[in-house]
Amino acid sequence: MAESQTSQDVVHPHPYVPRDLNLPGYIPCFLSQSNILSIYASFTISVFAVTWIFSVDRLLIFWWAFTGLTHFILEGYFAFTPEFYKDNTGFYLAEVWKEYSKGDSRYAARDAGVVTVEGLTAVLEGPASLLAVYAIATGKPYSYILQFAVSLGQLYGTAVYFITAILEGDNFSTNSFYYYAYYIGANFSWIVIPSIISIRCWRKIVAAVQVQNQTKKTKVR
Amino acid sequence: MAESQTSQDVVHPHPYVPRDLNLPGYIPCFLSQSNILSIYASFTISVFAVTWIFSVDRLLIFWWAFTGLTHFILEGYFAFTPEFYKDNTGFYLAEVWKEYSKGDSRYAARDAGVVTVEGLTAVLEGPASLLAVYAIATGKPYSYILQFAVSLGQLYGTAVYFITAILEGDNFSTNSFYYYAYYIGANFSWIVIPSIISIRCWRKIVAAVQVQNQTKKTKVR
Repeated sequence: MAESQTSQDVVHPHPYVPRDLNLPGYIPCFLSQSNILSIYASFTISVFAVTWIFSVDRLLIFWWAFTGLTHFILEGYFAFTPEFYKDNTGFYLAEVWKEYSKGDSRYAARDAGVVTVEGLTAVLEGPASLLAVYAIATGKPYSYILQFAVSLGQLYGTAVYFITAILEGDNFSTNSFYYYAYYIGANFSWIVIPSIISIRCWRKIVAAVQVQNQTKKTKVR
Repeated sequence: MAESQTSQDVVHPHPYVPRDLNLPGYIPCFLSQSNILSIYASFTISVFAVTWIFSVDRLLIFWWAFTGLTHFILEGYFAFTPEFYKDNTGFYLAEVWKEYSKGDSRYAARDAGVVTVEGLTAVLEGPASLLAVYAIATGKPYSYILQFAVSLGQLYGTAVYFITAILEGDNFSTNSFYYYAYYIGANFSWIVIPSIISIRCWRKIVAAVQVQNQTKKTKVR
């Protein structure tokens, strides 16, 4: 089978949709789908275990460490590696995006909207998420507004991601398994969790401002 | 001259760049550039005058009224009117976007990134900006966090707007006058003002949370 050869001379047909997408130099995945997913799951469980043992605001710190590292490393690699689909070394980060492109071929096709959102996410929200870990752990007064800002950025980015796909025809998935498991499933956490965090932070901030306003009024009397 | 005829049978060449952009049914502007700009300037001055006379936090209320109405009416019209460039009635909102497309033809070409950002801006940030007018005028405790949220959305949208243009080749302006006056100039306020407002709100919120944290510590002692 030509597909299992790794020589650079062989032309490998890519598995992505639309079928006429042109990806010269494409190299298929080396790792299996289950290998790629189990490595990411192990990473997630490790971050969870470490944050659970050592911290107070445990779940939040876990989330910010997990999402910050995902933004910075995984999405940062994508944003600044236009030719990841040509990787022939089996490098894990390239394998992830080759696999994920089965759910959204705009990653392989270098769609401007996707690259923009991933670039902003990696460069701004990645470091800001890791700063949130520090801010929560040390009880900084900017902790809520920082978490609110990053969550809002994640929600805006996810909205741009899905709406541009709809406007461009929503035909970038190899089949419905990849559509629901990767395109919908993998992005779902970044709608639900930032929504919960931003509502919580909004309430905490409004309560603090309200107390301050009342204190001022009392002093004036 | 064929260009001055308004009969629907006549094919009008469009003035936009890239020159091979296909816009069947295009109708040229009826109003002159100076007419379009002076109507928008009159609207801006009227909003400024009304808010200056009646309010306390005058400049902020003016900004939120101006930006809210711009988002809701001007950008809302664009987001939900794919064929504005075919308008043959001289309707003001269509004229604005025909004229602005000389600075960024992605508006006429219905670029997915531009439509997404304008849609989110019109639907979410438009009403939220008008809510900010009310919140500031009545001294609501959510005033700062609301202004912060909308400003961050404006900054994220403007970032997506410019970065996608760069990634797509940055060749959408008829000439350098339109590039600097429309594409750069008209969007510049939505970088500078939301930056100033979001820094101010960040500081106000951090100060309020800090006071609350200290109050709690004092009570515990």
